[in-house]
Amino acid sequence: MDKQTVILEKMVTTLLSEKKYPSLRDILVTMNPSDIAGLFDALEQDRVPLLFRLLPKELAAETFVEMEPEAQQMLIQGFSDSELKEVVDELYLDDAVDLVEEMPANVVRRILAQADPETRQSINELLRYPENSAGSIMTTEYVTLRPNMTVGESILRIRRTGVDKETIYTCYVTDNRTLLGLVTVKDLLLAEDDDTPIREIMQTHIISATTHTDQEEVARMFAKYNFLAIPVVDNENRMVGIVTFDDAMDVMEEEATEDIELMGGMSPSEKSYTRATVFDLFRQRIPWLLLLMVSATFTGLIITNFEHALAAQVALTAFIPMLMDTGGNSGSQSSVTIIRALSLGELEFRDLPWVMWKEIRTSVLCGVVLAAVCFVKILLIDRLLMGNSDITIMVSLVVCLTLAVTVFLAKAVGCALPLVAKRLGFDPAVMASPFITTIVDALSLLVYFSIAKLLLGV
Amino acid sequence: MDKQTVILEKMVTTLLSEKKYPSLRDILVTMNPSDIAGLFDALEQDRVPLLFRLLPKELAAETFVEMEPEAQQMLIQGFSDSELKEVVDELYLDDAVDLVEEMPANVVRRILAQADPETRQSINELLRYPENSAGSIMTTEYVTLRPNMTVGESILRIRRTGVDKETIYTCYVTDNRTLLGLVTVKDLLLAEDDDTPIREIMQTHIISATTHTDQEEVARMFAKYNFLAIPVVDNENRMVGIVTFDDAMDVMEEEATEDIELMGGMSPSEKSYTRATVFDLFRQRIPWLLLLMVSATFTGLIITNFEHALAAQVALTAFIPMLMDTGGNSGSQSSVTIIRALSLGELEFRDLPWVMWKEIRTSVLCGVVLAAVCFVKILLIDRLLMGNSDITIMVSLVVCLTLAVTVFLAKAVGCALPLVAKRLGFDPAVMASPFITTIVDALSLLVYFSIAKLLLGV
Repeated sequence: MDKQTVILEKMVTTLLSEKKYPSLRDILVTMNPSDIAGLFDALEQDRVPLLFRLLPKELAAETFVEMEPEAQQMLIQGFSDSELKEVVDELYLDDAVDLVEEMPANVVRRILAQADPETRQSINELLRYPENSAGSIMTTEYVTLRPNMTVGESILRIRRTGVDKETIYTCYVTDNRTLLGLVTVKDLLLAEDDDTPIREIMQTHIISATTHTDQEEVARMFAKYNFLAIPVVDNENRMVGIVTFDDAMDVMEEEATEDIELMGGMSPSEKSYTRATVFDLFRQRIPWLLLLMVSATFTGLIITNFEHALAAQVALTAFIPMLMDTGGNSGSQSSVTIIRALSLGELEFRDLPWVMWKEIRTSVLCGVVLAAVCFVKILLIDRLLMGNSDITIMVSLVVCLTLAVTVFLAKAVGCALPLVAKRLGFDPAVMASPFITTIVDALSLLVYFSIAKLLLGV
Repeated sequence: MDKQTVILEKMVTTLLSEKKYPSLRDILVTMNPSDIAGLFDALEQDRVPLLFRLLPKELAAETFVEMEPEAQQMLIQGFSDSELKEVVDELYLDDAVDLVEEMPANVVRRILAQADPETRQSINELLRYPENSAGSIMTTEYVTLRPNMTVGESILRIRRTGVDKETIYTCYVTDNRTLLGLVTVKDLLLAEDDDTPIREIMQTHIISATTHTDQEEVARMFAKYNFLAIPVVDNENRMVGIVTFDDAMDVMEEEATEDIELMGGMSPSEKSYTRATVFDLFRQRIPWLLLLMVSATFTGLIITNFEHALAAQVALTAFIPMLMDTGGNSGSQSSVTIIRALSLGELEFRDLPWVMWKEIRTSVLCGVVLAAVCFVKILLIDRLLMGNSDITIMVSLVVCLTLAVTVFLAKAVGCALPLVAKRLGFDPAVMASPFITTIVDALSLLVYFSIAKLLLGV
């Protein structure tokens, strides 16, 4: 909660207890819907319905959309049917769909009962699109024009029908629901002659999504082309909706959070940190911790198998953490880089050989430098400074050779796994650091003991 | 490179070798500037200037903006002065500034020489704002209106002056450069009466940034409020520019990439993976690998100090990797979660006690479940199945107790460090997994050996 919200919260609480409703209303209407929602989320929940009723109708609906689902549900449960109808009527269709998706069944029934029949039908249609598809985030409220309309007629049409549209700035030219082209309001306003037919100024090379396009891909289209809206067409190339840039921004933010959570070894969650309960956090984290703990059985087995070697050369044990960590870090550097490049659409599976070659050269550079510095460090710090005479030059050699080989293996595994995961239809982010670390740990120990056997004869 | 680009590349190369320039032009004008730029980046560089000259002036400038800096530089070096002037004249001011920032000094001199004096002055002014500030990403090309204009006059003004503005959809009402309010083109078009003065319909509660606001914060404002543009004011509250949503999207993407790179233990880079050379990757990665390798000296020292304990109870060594990895994973789960929440503006330093309390409860849940499962796993798999009789019940107890304590410590350190880093003015993402892993490794080993001493008397 930021400082401003804290001050506002006090102010509002005081005015509420003094029942100064006109002043409260005056304060609230100066605020932005997101900020009002933020304030409502911070207040005690029993105060919210009263404040909500102070808001003018349109502002009330805009604020409602920005509130957390829990708070929305509380409000709806307190609404009379006519109050609920007022809010539902003001919602844009895609926001109504989001709401229906978040609410429990009994609340959904009330919402749908209050929506007018046309809205109800549209909501039900939109609900049928698969989660995370363009269809599920689009809205069906957009401006359509006919190709033979003139610029002047089009502007009139926008002025007459625009009030309920989520955006009026991009208008779609359709014929029998087939998408022919688009014009922007800028094109219309800057057109030299009001009698020009739309057909002559419309852009006909259109970038569109289909209802089944993944929402992440739609968001990438926005980032690439800087559009305000992208049209969505069905299998027969008929226009069925638009996705607007603000929804694309939300998707970009969500998908980045999801990637980051997976990379950190957690199941993604739709709840923000502030909203998640302790048990939510526990459920997000424990499966991965368990999985990785159990899979560490392998590293344990490897060490057990080489116990006699470690007993013969006690100095070797001290370098295990360093070797494992450096391997893990090298591997996650590569995997994280590749995962991000995949998310941004820069790489595909077919790039695997090229990526491998790039990573292998990088790993040789990193491995050689690390091994050289490590050799000097071991001899200067560990042997001379700390006076550990167990650490012979041969031991240092074993450690440094292992280091170089481990970095090489870690980077090869780290870059290949996300690409392979993508190919197999998994989310590449699943292959990030915790997984790579476990694999690389096992590899580095095997390399360590093999080289030790070879060079030290243990 | 995606499949479509590959097909296009072949087509264009064939048409070029057959010198079918009219057809080439026809193909190119159907394409979106971003896609043309993508095609140019994929083609052999000596073919690009010829193709570029086939493009109509406006499309050429739009394509130029989307190209990689290296390709832009090549093109400029091949331009005659008049060609360069044509492109520079068509650029929006913020794109011109980006270009000047990317090009080497001799190219910059040529660009500035070709810009008209007014543009040159504006570019120089924009260049003075600190990197990553709102001032550095804003443009000074926006529509201003006066408060006493009518709706009709405003629409006329937009039609007359809009062509060079980056957006016309949000217009700013100023008086003597002081920002009084804003109207959208939607407000203007939907206004009932053309004679209404702007003063009466403008929104006066404006969310704005200052020239020094961090670009990350500006991007967050877009994600929160869904604006098309945000006005930027100077210290005297005079309006100096606007940031548009497309630039905010780029910032969101860049900042997420930067966080992810830091979390993966790399220095952030502005180059995409496909553009980065092997040496770029090496430079991004080696400092962290070296730092973490050297800091692993501590873990080595701890093990060396407890060598006799390990020699007395050889079974203990086998669990070191599992304990270190689980600790590292637990810690990075917490740090990654907190870093993302900080990036999204959900948390601040003042939330530290609340965050700690939440993480501590989560860690107790995770720690207890992990320890219990681990105890059963050790006795069933490691002792019974693998027949390792060195692993006594006391050894399992030591391992499981260490596991629980390590998870607790890892989560406490993992959630606190990013918040402290933020408070001290560092990027919290620096505190992510590799750092946490190193600290947690040392802690977990200390805990392990202390508990072993206590319970096993080694």
